[in-house]
Amino acid sequence: MKLFLQVVSVAEAVETARGIAPPPRSEEVPLEDALRRVLAGDVCADVDIPGFDRSTVDGYAVAAADTVGAGEAIPAMLHYRGRVAMGGDDGAAIAPGSCMYVPTGGPLPAGADAVAMIEYCEQVGDDVLVHRAVAPGENVVHADEDFTAGEVVLAAGTTLSPRDVGVAAAAGADAVGVVAVPKVGIISTGNELVPVVSVPRTGEVRDVNSYLCGSFVTERGCHPVYYGIIRDDRDALTRTLTAALGECDLVLISGGSSKDERDNTSAAIASLGQVLVHGVAIAPGKPTIIGQAAEKPVIGLPGHPASAYVVLVAIVDHLLAAMMQTEVARRTTAARMAQNVPSQRGREDYVRVAVQDGRATPVFGKSGLLNTLVRSTGLVRVPAGREGLEVDEEVEVILW
Amino acid sequence: MKLFLQVVSVAEAVETARGIAPPPRSEEVPLEDALRRVLAGDVCADVDIPGFDRSTVDGYAVAAADTVGAGEAIPAMLHYRGRVAMGGDDGAAIAPGSCMYVPTGGPLPAGADAVAMIEYCEQVGDDVLVHRAVAPGENVVHADEDFTAGEVVLAAGTTLSPRDVGVAAAAGADAVGVVAVPKVGIISTGNELVPVVSVPRTGEVRDVNSYLCGSFVTERGCHPVYYGIIRDDRDALTRTLTAALGECDLVLISGGSSKDERDNTSAAIASLGQVLVHGVAIAPGKPTIIGQAAEKPVIGLPGHPASAYVVLVAIVDHLLAAMMQTEVARRTTAARMAQNVPSQRGREDYVRVAVQDGRATPVFGKSGLLNTLVRSTGLVRVPAGREGLEVDEEVEVILW
Repeated sequence: MKLFLQVVSVAEAVETARGIAPPPRSEEVPLEDALRRVLAGDVCADVDIPGFDRSTVDGYAVAAADTVGAGEAIPAMLHYRGRVAMGGDDGAAIAPGSCMYVPTGGPLPAGADAVAMIEYCEQVGDDVLVHRAVAPGENVVHADEDFTAGEVVLAAGTTLSPRDVGVAAAAGADAVGVVAVPKVGIISTGNELVPVVSVPRTGEVRDVNSYLCGSFVTERGCHPVYYGIIRDDRDALTRTLTAALGECDLVLISGGSSKDERDNTSAAIASLGQVLVHGVAIAPGKPTIIGQAAEKPVIGLPGHPASAYVVLVAIVDHLLAAMMQTEVARRTTAARMAQNVPSQRGREDYVRVAVQDGRATPVFGKSGLLNTLVRSTGLVRVPAGREGLEVDEEVEVILW
Repeated sequence: MKLFLQVVSVAEAVETARGIAPPPRSEEVPLEDALRRVLAGDVCADVDIPGFDRSTVDGYAVAAADTVGAGEAIPAMLHYRGRVAMGGDDGAAIAPGSCMYVPTGGPLPAGADAVAMIEYCEQVGDDVLVHRAVAPGENVVHADEDFTAGEVVLAAGTTLSPRDVGVAAAAGADAVGVVAVPKVGIISTGNELVPVVSVPRTGEVRDVNSYLCGSFVTERGCHPVYYGIIRDDRDALTRTLTAALGECDLVLISGGSSKDERDNTSAAIASLGQVLVHGVAIAPGKPTIIGQAAEKPVIGLPGHPASAYVVLVAIVDHLLAAMMQTEVARRTTAARMAQNVPSQRGREDYVRVAVQDGRATPVFGKSGLLNTLVRSTGLVRVPAGREGLEVDEEVEVILW
């Protein structure tokens, strides 16, 4: 039994994990279900948008030339030819010296090249007095000014925001090709674990990691598949891992990754594939495992929930992003350290902090305390080459 | 026909909208479905957590007093009494002068009050040499140190993060009481609108606002109910609004809110309830309507998608937060203006900007262009009392 792990740097661990990300599959979904999905291909405009010269205001469609010199005192007087209908092409047209009323969004009649805002016009019998000159194109969006037919409206790889979904609708995309949601198998191991519905007896604790991992991957746009609690039994773990590899794109196993005789995760992975990394220079989270079996990544997370969550944020997040061919979308905020934090050179420390009024206060607490997960609002990374953070130093807080 | 709207400030509009937010209902959901839901009540620990004195490391459980004075040269020698089993209470105990192996997370045997890390110990036959003294409590989490039975673990009003879901599991909450998801009815009006599956003819444009509103409220944790496209017909709109009010907690109607003869939204609301606001000092978005019918809020949004979206962010977001009794959860970033932006005193301008390397560049474009929705990454608010923003001025960008 080796006492110490052969650790790799966090950067190497991330690179290894990204390197074994299975290629994404794609699927088509109705546009109304596409929010936050990642586009597998470009969305192009199928037609010119808006497709016709369109008024941006309520007013009178005119030939701009007819308003040259018009002002408050000497208005241009134009013959009123009625209203443009919304939503159709009724062949409306104006001759020089005339105008038509057009509501916001309405099409310009033939012969018009600008719209005089209603605020500057006055209807007098069959005539309209225009009190301000308009330039050609004024208050008009031209037929292909928004998007031209064939133009890429949204590029492949875009994570669709509500605005993007709206623009895709304009482009006629009632369904879109998106990266399929990765299925992530979740296994918790440990004789000490009991389900959340149980009242733990002495020596037992509830399975927190299934919920932590499941919620984490859900938030990142993946679909969790729960395989429950497996006791410290290599054969049982290997059987469950085999089942999970058959159904999922990635498997997360928490617990059983310490370098002691309970090191079942590494043994189970090795029996089905290979262990690529066992031990990362990260605190907390050192006994992390990165392996591959059935051409799928298998990650061994520490049993401590707080440590497991740091590894999810620092390493697994990058793997999920690679699997979905997108960027790691994490929220960060700038803050200044409220106190010194010592760190050990040679490993990356992830310090839990509470941020208030731009100050990041470390949330200290023994390794393994769950309450640090809710007392902290984020993580500050101390690079491996640093011996700590200094009070008032500006840091980036990962809002985890 | 009045030409001009009686506008109120954005702050008044928000206050009016929040004031008519219907009280939230609550429901119980399984914990695995509770991510991002808002807690309707406190979640308390049902038992002490972890519930027993627990090792945070792999090592030997000892009586700290037995290690006093131990060092590299003169170790403490303790009799090895075997291993503590994980997950049970096997009545393990040590007498003074002895120790037991305990894995990370395991229970301390009776008689032990600290754990010596395995790295500083050496097993020699039936004895263990401890090369470093440990203090009482060292490497141990006490039985109620994480949470005490009855303690509030997560307070009502918390929007559940993945970490919160994990901690709720530890507290035994296999189901949680959360604010029910508000149902938001979505109606698009306008003779010019055609469904996304249609190819628009001259004068027609696709219905973008249904998708924009639906995705927006989905992202905010609400459930959209789509009522499709209603032509410019007061009776038809009134009938659809009546149906929507019967099924939803809030109704959003886009289009038909200009102060011209197409002003059907205001008429439909007035026929079923009352119009509280018609016109807000915001640009874009001035013809916004806030009304109430059947004791539910009804919001009239501008027909232009870009204007409608600004109103969703600036006003409707606050209403949704009030309905869910939570805070407006918007992402912001600090940036400096890349150029001057003039603004009209007396109204709040929301300037679309693209942010890169900390510089916010205004995305200009005619009112009504959809492409500004995708070319911009956020909104910068110009307060009503300001005449504009100056180059290099520090601003808060709402990442919309």
